[in-house]
Amino acid sequence: MDSMDPSREFVTNVKRIIVKVGTAVVTRADGRLALGRLGALCEQLKELNSQGYEIVLVTSGAVGLGRQRLRYRKLVNSSLADLQNPQYEIDGKAAAAVGQSSLMALYDTLFSQLDVTSSQHLVTDNDFRNVSFRKQLSETVKSLLALKVIPIFNENDAVSTRRAPYEDSSGIFWDNDSLAGLLALELKADLLILLSDVEGLYSGPPSDPNSKLIHTYIKEKHQGEITFGDKSRLGRGGMTAKVNAAVCAAFAGIPVVITSGYGTDNVIKVLQGKRVGTLFHQDAHLWTKVKEVGAREMAVAARDCSRRLQALNSEERRNILLDIADALEANETLIKVENDADVAEAQEAGYEKSLISRLALKPGKATSLAKSIRVLADMEDPIGHVLNRTEIADGLILEKTSCPLGVLLIVFESRPDALVQIASLAIRSGNGLLLKGGKEAKRSNAILHKVITSAIPNKVGDKLIGLVASRDDIPDLLKLDDVIDLVIPRGSNKLVSQIKNSTKIPVLGHADGICHVYVDKSAKADTAKQIVLDAKIDYPAACNAMETLLVHKDLSSKCTGLLYELIMELQQEGVTLYGGPRACSLLNIPEAHSFHYEYNSMACTVEIVDDVHAAIDHIHRHGSSHTDCIVTENHEVAEIFLHGVDSAAVFHNASTRFCDGARFGLGAEVGISTSRIHARGPVGVEGLLTTRWILRGNGQVVDGDKGVIYTHKQLPLQIQL
Amino acid sequence: MDSMDPSREFVTNVKRIIVKVGTAVVTRADGRLALGRLGALCEQLKELNSQGYEIVLVTSGAVGLGRQRLRYRKLVNSSLADLQNPQYEIDGKAAAAVGQSSLMALYDTLFSQLDVTSSQHLVTDNDFRNVSFRKQLSETVKSLLALKVIPIFNENDAVSTRRAPYEDSSGIFWDNDSLAGLLALELKADLLILLSDVEGLYSGPPSDPNSKLIHTYIKEKHQGEITFGDKSRLGRGGMTAKVNAAVCAAFAGIPVVITSGYGTDNVIKVLQGKRVGTLFHQDAHLWTKVKEVGAREMAVAARDCSRRLQALNSEERRNILLDIADALEANETLIKVENDADVAEAQEAGYEKSLISRLALKPGKATSLAKSIRVLADMEDPIGHVLNRTEIADGLILEKTSCPLGVLLIVFESRPDALVQIASLAIRSGNGLLLKGGKEAKRSNAILHKVITSAIPNKVGDKLIGLVASRDDIPDLLKLDDVIDLVIPRGSNKLVSQIKNSTKIPVLGHADGICHVYVDKSAKADTAKQIVLDAKIDYPAACNAMETLLVHKDLSSKCTGLLYELIMELQQEGVTLYGGPRACSLLNIPEAHSFHYEYNSMACTVEIVDDVHAAIDHIHRHGSSHTDCIVTENHEVAEIFLHGVDSAAVFHNASTRFCDGARFGLGAEVGISTSRIHARGPVGVEGLLTTRWILRGNGQVVDGDKGVIYTHKQLPLQIQL
Repeated sequence: MDSMDPSREFVTNVKRIIVKVGTAVVTRADGRLALGRLGALCEQLKELNSQGYEIVLVTSGAVGLGRQRLRYRKLVNSSLADLQNPQYEIDGKAAAAVGQSSLMALYDTLFSQLDVTSSQHLVTDNDFRNVSFRKQLSETVKSLLALKVIPIFNENDAVSTRRAPYEDSSGIFWDNDSLAGLLALELKADLLILLSDVEGLYSGPPSDPNSKLIHTYIKEKHQGEITFGDKSRLGRGGMTAKVNAAVCAAFAGIPVVITSGYGTDNVIKVLQGKRVGTLFHQDAHLWTKVKEVGAREMAVAARDCSRRLQALNSEERRNILLDIADALEANETLIKVENDADVAEAQEAGYEKSLISRLALKPGKATSLAKSIRVLADMEDPIGHVLNRTEIADGLILEKTSCPLGVLLIVFESRPDALVQIASLAIRSGNGLLLKGGKEAKRSNAILHKVITSAIPNKVGDKLIGLVASRDDIPDLLKLDDVIDLVIPRGSNKLVSQIKNSTKIPVLGHADGICHVYVDKSAKADTAKQIVLDAKIDYPAACNAMETLLVHKDLSSKCTGLLYELIMELQQEGVTLYGGPRACSLLNIPEAHSFHYEYNSMACTVEIVDDVHAAIDHIHRHGSSHTDCIVTENHEVAEIFLHGVDSAAVFHNASTRFCDGARFGLGAEVGISTSRIHARGPVGVEGLLTTRWILRGNGQVVDGDKGVIYTHKQLPLQIQL
Repeated sequence: MDSMDPSREFVTNVKRIIVKVGTAVVTRADGRLALGRLGALCEQLKELNSQGYEIVLVTSGAVGLGRQRLRYRKLVNSSLADLQNPQYEIDGKAAAAVGQSSLMALYDTLFSQLDVTSSQHLVTDNDFRNVSFRKQLSETVKSLLALKVIPIFNENDAVSTRRAPYEDSSGIFWDNDSLAGLLALELKADLLILLSDVEGLYSGPPSDPNSKLIHTYIKEKHQGEITFGDKSRLGRGGMTAKVNAAVCAAFAGIPVVITSGYGTDNVIKVLQGKRVGTLFHQDAHLWTKVKEVGAREMAVAARDCSRRLQALNSEERRNILLDIADALEANETLIKVENDADVAEAQEAGYEKSLISRLALKPGKATSLAKSIRVLADMEDPIGHVLNRTEIADGLILEKTSCPLGVLLIVFESRPDALVQIASLAIRSGNGLLLKGGKEAKRSNAILHKVITSAIPNKVGDKLIGLVASRDDIPDLLKLDDVIDLVIPRGSNKLVSQIKNSTKIPVLGHADGICHVYVDKSAKADTAKQIVLDAKIDYPAACNAMETLLVHKDLSSKCTGLLYELIMELQQEGVTLYGGPRACSLLNIPEAHSFHYEYNSMACTVEIVDDVHAAIDHIHRHGSSHTDCIVTENHEVAEIFLHGVDSAAVFHNASTRFCDGARFGLGAEVGISTSRIHARGPVGVEGLLTTRWILRGNGQVVDGDKGVIYTHKQLPLQIQL
């Protein structure tokens, strides 16, 4: 998720860069040079210089620095009388003259440390009125750049006859931002970077938590939103001048990035195509329809559609599902063509067989998907169920009713059938949906999405289900915790962890599936063998496959115990065994690296435990709270285990592989959750619902709890239409 | 939450500081000086110098820098033949000699820019064998520090006759870490800061995500855990030398902090008492029992106790609650004494009346609290309820049962009675609990916690309920997303937002309570008036109080409409009104700043809307999904509102003030949730439960779904014992 942003791909063609650094970056609050920031800037420019970039630096800061120096000089020279009257004005021109040499001396020292040569260019507005000056400037800079020198520009404030502050923008340039823009054009730069004291351009004051950093400036969209001409630093972070310069340069064909000069590697990041700061690019309006703007709009549209979907009656919602089922069957050929294309491409790319087999829709799949949608359609409508009904007081009736969660974001692997399942579950539960499937199934997902959404009636809107085009959109979506209500990642442990770490939206899913089978001393040998084998080998890569086998110590006696039979059977099936300390010393197997380990393959850990309590303790200590099983004929021991193991699913004498939405009879499944909040275990329609309290009265008031006489009588549930 | 860490309070007495910066901080990967980091370091030292601290710098980096310089020199001097054979060895002494002057030149330049004078001190191991040298050194440094000069130390590698690498530590010092430690002792420093390339000392390799930064080193605890003597950088981030130096200095009485020299303000932060890096302090073992170690241990203990609590039967859990009720009554006098002390202190401190009134336990409160606990005890046990029962296949029965969430962390305001309520809800629901109450109620909370936990039997353990001593522990607790399952903040919008932003643990609660009352055109005037008044004035600071009144446009005609009556009534009661654009232009009231605003006082916003759909739209756009109400006699319109408004609670003809756990008949309430995941609206016992799937079979296996014939038959629910 940290790769190049598509809207920043143009940087691969950048060679010549103008970097402008402002006073707020160059100097500290006390007027002295900000050595850390300047050092980091020089290091970055050195780095880019070595990589072959041509760099021109435009630097402010001389006036402020000179003022501080002169003030210090005055203090050193002053008499006691002067000190008692410390108010004095320092001349701006004088400050510029003093500061400029001091500033350049530091740049020279810093660049020398890095074996970089720099040069100084002080220019005025007037110079640029002269055509031959402009020509000569280009040539001088060109020859310096050819020698890998970094030219450093500043306005020649010490000799300029303009009066500061420059209140108009009538000149050729009027500040270092516009000077940088002008130089970018004159020197035919490929990129202009303006370094500021904030991260970029915000939609509002940067201090307001509701302000969002604008990644890509779009004239049509942002020009109206942002108050230009507002010179207050507070309002827009001193951005007006920068945005004006950036807009001018961008529409003259030179991309501009405004970013923070406080970071130690922002300039490098910009050149790596990372999405830092705000980009101004003349083509921005072309891409941004798909990007950035897209994320929030997509989510908001899905929410609006979901509210309209909720407002339909049960029969109408059922009909949508039936229409989708029909559409899938009617478009079977079309779907096959696209799926074949995906499969062919995956084969060509040399993907592993298991991926290709998940990717391919087998013949008749459209029919079987349609069939399962019809089953879902015929299930009782889960929305608006009255779960609880209480008379609070005479004539005041409270109902707790089921209602959709809102908008779901589901990131799933390369199984196109998952898209159909998830979409139908979302519609059945009244939710809006944003889907991001594996890129290998791109064409299959696109056609399935099209077939499904075209069956959604206009009064709901086909934006109910959004197909997220690129993985790069996910970071944007994960920020929308005000619109998206639940994220369900279906994929690798890494994907789940990454998503959990980068969003405030609740995440439903599981990272690990470390399932245990505990064989108690009273286990029937045959039952134990068949459960252990099925739990491990029915589908070893599944999250509900057994990863650790725990065996009661009494079964390990001599070489005749059930432990040995289990070991033999597993090894005969080709399962590689690793042992805990006790199992290792008894059996001839290598030691397991860790008890908290998911093999996801034909391998498992074996350990010997003293009794059911030790087994529970082991599971609590090393498990992942997914599915754990006891094999025993002793029902008392079974109940201790069933109530003692604190996992999402706990089984007695049944294979862990049963832990699955379809096998549990939930219809389709959006995932298996090991978190304790909201839904736990296999999650079907029910896990996509929340509740709403509805209270009906006839004018009752609280009035310090004297307004009514509370009765709190439970009433029978009635179906609410 | 960003204040001084208690274990770092000693920094307020620090005056003389030794800062040691290593090669990995001073130089870059290419051997050149890391200008950004050095600049930031000098800026920090300047800052501290101005604040009156005495600073001694120990710097490495000369050898590496000299080596890079000499290599460059050789390249410049080289012939083509040399260039084709670029392998050459550079002498370490020579490199040290060249590098030292270059390094000092840069320090001098940087410090000069900041108007700081620095001095150079090159010392060898041998020098320190001479007592008069040591005495003289102290005196020299002392006089420099008195002049605000920063002395810069390095080992005089160019003349030292020791052979590098120094494989033993037999000398007086053997690297700059031990030199810094030695100087700290010689110069009687108050603090030694060792700047490294990692954040501090980790429990394992810093690259391993399971490694945790150790905030405070405790010899007894960490010496065993961390492999000392391991010289590999990979293993401990090159920490061994630093830790050895730090331990020596710390146990000689000089506190040491190891932190990163990559950050731009870590040195400043250390002096501000922020918890950055790893602290070594001779008294560390005394405080850390309460801190750091405490957070995780407390949470783990609460989880263990909660598992034992779950294992009890219903009757046993009921008895605990009854014992607590008795204990509260029996200790009424004791509780009163402590509460009186809190109240007296709060009055003395001049807290506002409302806080003091919440703080004070009124006479008879112990009895009424005991009574409500007995009601809770007599409620049906919520744990182990079978919520769903399915026959999956012949002899394979699946149950979805209720079970506790696990461990709750509740941060609540200064109401001691809330502690009792929350604790009894947690016990009733089988959860472990960590409680942090307002500091004003410290003594009341302590006694209530003691009375309650002493009534918890040993077989559960009194650590079931932990009382968090200080607000500073909260950041530690919020990191424990593997042990704590739910955080419930009860307090200001700011507290809720802060907690939400700083944890991955799910947070239950609400930030805003912007409740609406919509008066439809068919509303009965009297009903509307009494609901609007009650919703606003019954308790204006409550989260379920009305903040916005929406009125149908037909009621605003002339000066006779219901709108005018409502406005008058509100104004008569002393409510200040603000208007939306339409209301403003019609009524003589000031404009509301924003529709998304919670007054929490005798004020509200008024706006006119076209109809129920416009009202719903307004609520979706500007509300906070807490509680919204319609007043109407038209039942069709009421149902549109009840099903259309997507809030936690939606009311018809009843005051929004009814939205409350007690009024809803849930018994006590832990909070009101506006999030959509898990629990919504007022949350009682039910919201503290999750589910567990229990599957009972007799050896069934999946076997590619040919193992059983699925029946998926719903069975009647039976109470599970």
